[in-house]
Amino acid sequence: MIDIQSTAATHRFAIESVGITGLRYPMLAEDGASGEVQPVVADWKMGVGLPETSRGTHMSRFIAGLEARQGQPFDLTKFHAFAETLAGELAATNADFTAQFTWFRLVKAPVTGLAARLECQVGFGAKIGATQEKTLSLSVAAKALCPCSKAIADRGAHNQRSDISLTLRLSPEAPVPSINKLLALLESSASSPVYPLLKREDEKFVTEAAYDNPVFVEDIVRQAADKLVDLPNTLGFTVEAINRESIHAHDAYARITYKHA
Amino acid sequence: MIDIQSTAATHRFAIESVGITGLRYPMLAEDGASGEVQPVVADWKMGVGLPETSRGTHMSRFIAGLEARQGQPFDLTKFHAFAETLAGELAATNADFTAQFTWFRLVKAPVTGLAARLECQVGFGAKIGATQEKTLSLSVAAKALCPCSKAIADRGAHNQRSDISLTLRLSPEAPVPSINKLLALLESSASSPVYPLLKREDEKFVTEAAYDNPVFVEDIVRQAADKLVDLPNTLGFTVEAINRESIHAHDAYARITYKHA
Amino acid sequence: MIDIQSTAATHRFAIESVGITGLRYPMLAEDGASGEVQPVVADWKMGVGLPETSRGTHMSRFIAGLEARQGQPFDLTKFHAFAETLAGELAATNADFTAQFTWFRLVKAPVTGLAARLECQVGFGAKIGATQEKTLSLSVAAKALCPCSKAIADRGAHNQRSDISLTLRLSPEAPVPSINKLLALLESSASSPVYPLLKREDEKFVTEAAYDNPVFVEDIVRQAADKLVDLPNTLGFTVEAINRESIHAHDAYARITYKHA
Amino acid sequence: MIDIQSTAATHRFAIESVGITGLRYPMLAEDGASGEVQPVVADWKMGVGLPETSRGTHMSRFIAGLEARQGQPFDLTKFHAFAETLAGELAATNADFTAQFTWFRLVKAPVTGLAARLECQVGFGAKIGATQEKTLSLSVAAKALCPCSKAIADRGAHNQRSDISLTLRLSPEAPVPSINKLLALLESSASSPVYPLLKREDEKFVTEAAYDNPVFVEDIVRQAADKLVDLPNTLGFTVEAINRESIHAHDAYARITYKHA
Repeated sequence: MIDIQSTAATHRFAIESVGITGLRYPMLAEDGASGEVQPVVADWKMGVGLPETSRGTHMSRFIAGLEARQGQPFDLTKFHAFAETLAGELAATNADFTAQFTWFRLVKAPVTGLAARLECQVGFGAKIGATQEKTLSLSVAAKALCPCSKAIADRGAHNQRSDISLTLRLSPEAPVPSINKLLALLESSASSPVYPLLKREDEKFVTEAAYDNPVFVEDIVRQAADKLVDLPNTLGFTVEAINRESIHAHDAYARITYKHA
Repeated sequence: MIDIQSTAATHRFAIESVGITGLRYPMLAEDGASGEVQPVVADWKMGVGLPETSRGTHMSRFIAGLEARQGQPFDLTKFHAFAETLAGELAATNADFTAQFTWFRLVKAPVTGLAARLECQVGFGAKIGATQEKTLSLSVAAKALCPCSKAIADRGAHNQRSDISLTLRLSPEAPVPSINKLLALLESSASSPVYPLLKREDEKFVTEAAYDNPVFVEDIVRQAADKLVDLPNTLGFTVEAINRESIHAHDAYARITYKHA
Repeated sequence: MIDIQSTAATHRFAIESVGITGLRYPMLAEDGASGEVQPVVADWKMGVGLPETSRGTHMSRFIAGLEARQGQPFDLTKFHAFAETLAGELAATNADFTAQFTWFRLVKAPVTGLAARLECQVGFGAKIGATQEKTLSLSVAAKALCPCSKAIADRGAHNQRSDISLTLRLSPEAPVPSINKLLALLESSASSPVYPLLKREDEKFVTEAAYDNPVFVEDIVRQAADKLVDLPNTLGFTVEAINRESIHAHDAYARITYKHA
Repeated sequence: MIDIQSTAATHRFAIESVGITGLRYPMLAEDGASGEVQPVVADWKMGVGLPETSRGTHMSRFIAGLEARQGQPFDLTKFHAFAETLAGELAATNADFTAQFTWFRLVKAPVTGLAARLECQVGFGAKIGATQEKTLSLSVAAKALCPCSKAIADRGAHNQRSDISLTLRLSPEAPVPSINKLLALLESSASSPVYPLLKREDEKFVTEAAYDNPVFVEDIVRQAADKLVDLPNTLGFTVEAINRESIHAHDAYARITYKHA
């Protein structure tokens, strides 16, 4: 049977990245630091480079490779190695893989100590080729209370949910940082964490704690950056906060990108 | 050329609704009460019933009908008439059309009076057949401040953006109510409206106004229902509020549905 | 500490449904027929009715109830029982719970037999109150090839991905039908199933099988309805297909709703 | 009244970008080449840089600036100038603005010539600062028929909707290229354009035309790149195609990025 993809070609352009997207596939996600494993459903994008001399890639190998590794936990380092191996199976010199999934922490209410699970979004990224890099992406909700509103109002202060996201860039050899510690670092940059389960005593605590710790959206990313910059073994980071303003129908955002020299 | 859709058929099931969805098409939207017209981009779903004796409908007529009316403003009554006409052109005895779009109001800040545009979502709906009905759907952002948090905390109170939505059911003959008055009705059921543009004096006003007017998500829909039930010429309504909780990563909601006897 | 939610009230309106939405929480999903269990991440909406005499519900009990059942598999019947129990804990006479999640099947390619996982969307629904009902919702991708295009073209025929969705209504006592069998029923109503992993021999098979089995979007829902209507122990169903037309930027859809007498 | 945002500060980090996102606002969009103007509803993201010595930006000025220009058409060059002016009003040395909207063309069916509107997505982008750049982003649906499937199958060939997107990078001084010509360039790289309105004669034409012109997802971006690289006055481009595979539940994609030396 003819193999059109493999026919010789002399194209003007190589393909930067070709592959599969919009794919949901189960994964065992592992936190590199703690070794905790969670069964997740990930959104995958897996692509490889293709030289000027090739007509097409073999898409089925991405799925076959993924299925062959079912049941094996992936931390970020193993994820990078998976991308490298699959690139090799496809005879590609570069590759770009991402997997995005929901990760849960068991979080205790601040006064009663009642525990329930809190979601956040995690992304693994792997770049293979002349630039070798792995990335850990996190997004977590927190509470932001406006310093201006507090200062000018005789009573109360507007506050809102803030979505804080981080992309941490790491060399392939770097140890994988703790997902949960990074989430706590991000949350501690806002007025207060959010919680899955709060009783009245807890709600009083969170309300007052946020009132006592007002932050602009600019403050959130600066406070996060102040801590992120001192993490060992990283190449750099981007941190962004988006405040779902309770006085507007639109959002406020701030972003800092930093690269280590 | 053979017309497969028109071949005779003896199917076990009639089709409840068949047509087009996922279609974006320009529309001149008209507010029935004020006559204000805005050029909008609507998301359309247009379907008709199909009897057991027909194999298929003629999809192109939906688009042709829509294009033929470009430049003519649609208020909800004209929208219903459009659905009725198109059902006739397709020899259908029932039809179900919806168009969703963004509508803007010029809103003034409460103290400085500075004006800017504020978005809301509007939907026109038309049901043709044994049940004749037109529906006006609205969704608008507002501010909700928690009465429990205010009562138990020594300072501050958690508050958040709330999305309030309404579906108003009307007979085909009913006059079309004012979009802007209904939006104001919904906003007045929350702790405060939101605004597109606020200076510091305005922000102080909104912060304090919301603090002085705390509402649970249940209160929002009840206060809206108390006003909606007395509107003339309606068949009934559904009102729902979704609070984007600033102390949680999840939302709180409440809903009331009412039918006039 | 004051409990505002529990203060006596004399409202004009009862709340139809109040609770939590936008919540992601882990679940062990169980297929009632086969007993297969998959760890999933579900999108939850959990609400209860609230009488005119109550100011507010106690939102934290939804989360506490969910957390208390972590590790216990839910099939649709257990899900309905969970909603009933939680309604009781909240002293509510009616409740409305849904959980939506991704479910995977190991699917073999039609010629080579190579297996990989294929996603579909599943929803559990439970209604407690005067109307007792549980619902199983499924959505699966399939392939639809146009009979008209095949009949009029000298070569080829346009085809596209079709998303077929089903909501099956069941009494609380009804045995839970097999998710995988219902998915196969839906897929068999299209021109061909889709597959996660296809080699060239398989792609030839699927291409020809679809070409030999053309269906309009109307045919898909009629063929599904012809089979669904004969399922035992159901109250009724809604089946809808949406064809992501490859000759248009918009979609074609058809829907049939049926209620057993 | 105290102005917290303006208080002196000595932060470790400047803010790369701070401003407003999630904002919908009306715009008169102008095609630079033809001068055609369409009223659109745009999704805006507007941000400026903030030095280490400033605590916060003044968010309301973004909205005030936008409102002040209502009724003035924006082509890409005027959009860039708007960003530059607003950055000046905020005393910022860099800024990053984007506006995304739906743009319509009146498209004729290939045989009957019947015309209707076809949507595409357009984005204006402006970067102010050390790097000055404006970007034109387009996304359009087209039809892709698989060469492998055609070659190996005895009859038919799988085909599907493909979403082709382009980001064209331009210097601030470059003339603005024609939106409609760029859309046609992208569509001509696929097996066939899609159409809003097709009669049977047209459907036969499109079916056969696509069958006669099979393309892999890799071919689409290569054929587009072959034409894009020769456009005058550009700094570079990224072109990506995503095929909504009709034999899979996932998508295939390919991407080429090119920078002029």
